[in-house]
Amino acid sequence: MSDETRTKLLDLIKDQGEVVRKLKAAKAESAKIAEEVAKLLDLKAQLGDENAGPQKLILKTPKGTRDYNPEQMALRLGVLEKIVAIFKRHGAETIDTPIFELKEVLTGKYGEDSKLIYDLKDQGGEILALRYDLTVPFARYLAMGKVSTIKRYHIAKVYRRDNPAMTKGRYREFYQCDFDIAGQYDPMIPDAECVRVVSEALTSLDLGPYVIKLNHRSLLDGIFAACGVPQEKFRSICSAVDKLDKSPWEEVRKEMIEEKQLDGDIADKIGSYVSKKGGIELIEQLRSDAILMNQPAAVSGLDSMALLLKYCEIYKLSDKIVFDLSLARGLDYYTGVIYEAILTGDGIGVGSVAGGGRYDNLVGMFDSKKKQVPCVGVSLGVERIFSVIESKLANKGQKIRTAEVEVFVASAQKNLHEQRMGVLSELWEAGLKAEQSYKKSPKLLAQLQHCEDSGIPLVVILGEGELARGEVTLREVATRAERAVPRANLVEEIRKWLSNPVSPP
Amino acid sequence: MSDETRTKLLDLIKDQGEVVRKLKAAKAESAKIAEEVAKLLDLKAQLGDENAGPQKLILKTPKGTRDYNPEQMALRLGVLEKIVAIFKRHGAETIDTPIFELKEVLTGKYGEDSKLIYDLKDQGGEILALRYDLTVPFARYLAMGKVSTIKRYHIAKVYRRDNPAMTKGRYREFYQCDFDIAGQYDPMIPDAECVRVVSEALTSLDLGPYVIKLNHRSLLDGIFAACGVPQEKFRSICSAVDKLDKSPWEEVRKEMIEEKQLDGDIADKIGSYVSKKGGIELIEQLRSDAILMNQPAAVSGLDSMALLLKYCEIYKLSDKIVFDLSLARGLDYYTGVIYEAILTGDGIGVGSVAGGGRYDNLVGMFDSKKKQVPCVGVSLGVERIFSVIESKLANKGQKIRTAEVEVFVASAQKNLHEQRMGVLSELWEAGLKAEQSYKKSPKLLAQLQHCEDSGIPLVVILGEGELARGEVTLREVATRAERAVPRANLVEEIRKWLSNPVSPP
Repeated sequence: MSDETRTKLLDLIKDQGEVVRKLKAAKAESAKIAEEVAKLLDLKAQLGDENAGPQKLILKTPKGTRDYNPEQMALRLGVLEKIVAIFKRHGAETIDTPIFELKEVLTGKYGEDSKLIYDLKDQGGEILALRYDLTVPFARYLAMGKVSTIKRYHIAKVYRRDNPAMTKGRYREFYQCDFDIAGQYDPMIPDAECVRVVSEALTSLDLGPYVIKLNHRSLLDGIFAACGVPQEKFRSICSAVDKLDKSPWEEVRKEMIEEKQLDGDIADKIGSYVSKKGGIELIEQLRSDAILMNQPAAVSGLDSMALLLKYCEIYKLSDKIVFDLSLARGLDYYTGVIYEAILTGDGIGVGSVAGGGRYDNLVGMFDSKKKQVPCVGVSLGVERIFSVIESKLANKGQKIRTAEVEVFVASAQKNLHEQRMGVLSELWEAGLKAEQSYKKSPKLLAQLQHCEDSGIPLVVILGEGELARGEVTLREVATRAERAVPRANLVEEIRKWLSNPVSPP
Repeated sequence: MSDETRTKLLDLIKDQGEVVRKLKAAKAESAKIAEEVAKLLDLKAQLGDENAGPQKLILKTPKGTRDYNPEQMALRLGVLEKIVAIFKRHGAETIDTPIFELKEVLTGKYGEDSKLIYDLKDQGGEILALRYDLTVPFARYLAMGKVSTIKRYHIAKVYRRDNPAMTKGRYREFYQCDFDIAGQYDPMIPDAECVRVVSEALTSLDLGPYVIKLNHRSLLDGIFAACGVPQEKFRSICSAVDKLDKSPWEEVRKEMIEEKQLDGDIADKIGSYVSKKGGIELIEQLRSDAILMNQPAAVSGLDSMALLLKYCEIYKLSDKIVFDLSLARGLDYYTGVIYEAILTGDGIGVGSVAGGGRYDNLVGMFDSKKKQVPCVGVSLGVERIFSVIESKLANKGQKIRTAEVEVFVASAQKNLHEQRMGVLSELWEAGLKAEQSYKKSPKLLAQLQHCEDSGIPLVVILGEGELARGEVTLREVATRAERAVPRANLVEEIRKWLSNPVSPP
């Protein structure tokens, strides 16, 4: 069996194992389970025939994860640098927290998604789990350090045992990139700045047209109440509404009625509200809805939205935002405004690239005296942003430089490696970015080819004759122009060229 | 819990409470206080388990881990930026790998230390473990991607279930910072560059005097053979020699004889070799040792060291290095040159700040056809470097800026928040780093105090009268000098000031 076949087979076995586990968990019909178990045994048998001898190492990264090669890293670091510049423009500091937390810190924060948390093995110590997002650790950090005001960003990896759709840029290990403002402040001032931050970041990354959807959890609660949803179903109906960005209303309606036992009439009323979107005029329209205005939550949610829209206008965001009643956001912990940004350019189809909202009660869950620290923030979906930029570059056939070498030190004859090292030592001392071949006697053509392939703009070529005359050759890679320069002036000549390159690197 | 146990526990809690109170009174380092508070909470938790009522959440990070606050992060990012600049000066690219690997990838690579690996819980999928270092994942990356040449750096966290000595800067989660050169090249050319990289990094970080110890595994093997150590004991005797940087010879000798069943005579012979250190003259001295020169491994190791020392001289490293026969390095996978850098300044006492070596057989362990990719690299001990720089700053009473705000937008009267937001919007549009208070009507004094506390150099103050005249006040925080500037020229005036600040920020 080839390595490839074996790996495929192992993947199939794993997937089939998942199928069986799910059926069992869902207490499916026993005949159905038996059928799938039989398939699983079949697959295992195929593998088993080959199993004589020692088990072979399967060379792969864990399911749903990947390595980043130098090209991918250069692109990612470039994107993150731009985003960090925006966060810093808004005065944010940064913090870091451990990759794992005590399991109980994460418990009860993610609703249905808790099953996606990676647990560490109990090796005789604390019960730990990998972080699922950066928000809960942030709240734990605030409560533990008794921090009551901070504006921070945090860029780090998080972990979810989801079924990865890796082709769509969804992984089990992925970067999150969060900006949050914590503190007891006046309404909507930090909230509006978060919208501004998202807008500046998406503009700076040149991702094409986008829209930032805005809504408010109190308004949604008010709508649910006005439609007659029982209080205890608010969150589960909210989860259903959240699916409207991916599913048509008919499916969401079906979920409300069949899974969540809502009356069809109530579902239809909700449907007529959540189809509304617009700008400031939508506020007036909703304010004239007497049934809705009977709900205090709706009144306060609308007042908040009116203030947010006004501030967004001052921040010159009016053409980037839409007040969208179908926006619900999945997570339980939001208490106020909620955001979601989507790219609207042709053929992008990656959905949300940023999301967030206000969560005023999360920090209190960690404080022994239940002291609250109100928070609002946004998370940029950098993995999707990476994918979009990667495919843009691929379409244009553009290559990205993965190293920053300014000058390559080459030799034209054999056994000049010690002379090359002497030159390199000087260049490094001068702070220049320089490298050489690690072979004693590389071929000149191979050295020049390496410079062209990796975008190195300058080459110093050492030759016996030139060295005897106290000279070296300086070659411009783009034009292939060469000239002799005194060995003693080499650093100066290179600096002169770099400060005003004939053809910029 | 028995009454007796409970009483003992209460006593311990009281004692630990005293420890914490004293540290706080003495204004000890916050990391130290946090550590003792964690112990206190641990004790209280043991008591709490017995208490009736709902379980209380223990607010802490997992054992051996910590949060990094904005000051710590600013310092760390500053250090890493300097190190990355050196890596880039040598033409390195960067890669990233997942935080966890298939367990079998890590198995059999770390000898006795394998017990320190963090395993993930088997949640019905692959058997995973957190990475223990960056070297084994790098080797897996090379084999999996069939990469045969690369010069890369990798800065990321690794995980070891060690007994942490957090006061000494040792944690269970910590950063590693690796530079490696992979490829089939001529002897010692990449190896010498690694020494140069360590030297440039330590110099650039201004850590005071340091020395880089060099040795060669073949030479050590030759010495062991010449002294009469049986072949199968080479690695375990090498581990014993490795302890010479922390323990006196007498203890190491005892370990060799009692634990590793070596003859006393043989141990003494080893002792006379490993006490030698020096420069190029040591090579000649060893070459005149006929018994040693009977061992082919010693001859080839010495030849390699001679070449390395020559290259280090060309790289102007002679006054930074010492050829030290007691250097052994713990890990099994080294096959050639080994390095270790230590700070030698007064009262530093942090031991090794960098280490590494050549490992030519590691990649082959992952390749189905055992294809080797020779590698050499160094790892900078950035956690220790962070501690050294932190305590330097603390001694000087220096504060580090955690945000980069250039200009604060303040108001002198109530209800000018919309005007402030209008000004901010302009400043951000111009790319200036600017912030405001998130309160509608903050006190002017509080706003100015914030600027002084956080090192913000400029303030724009809005007042009703000035705004009516089309003016704003520009205040220089350091000198408290104020002047009126036209509202319309604000961006220009700020840029002018920043390009030539009266008192630099």
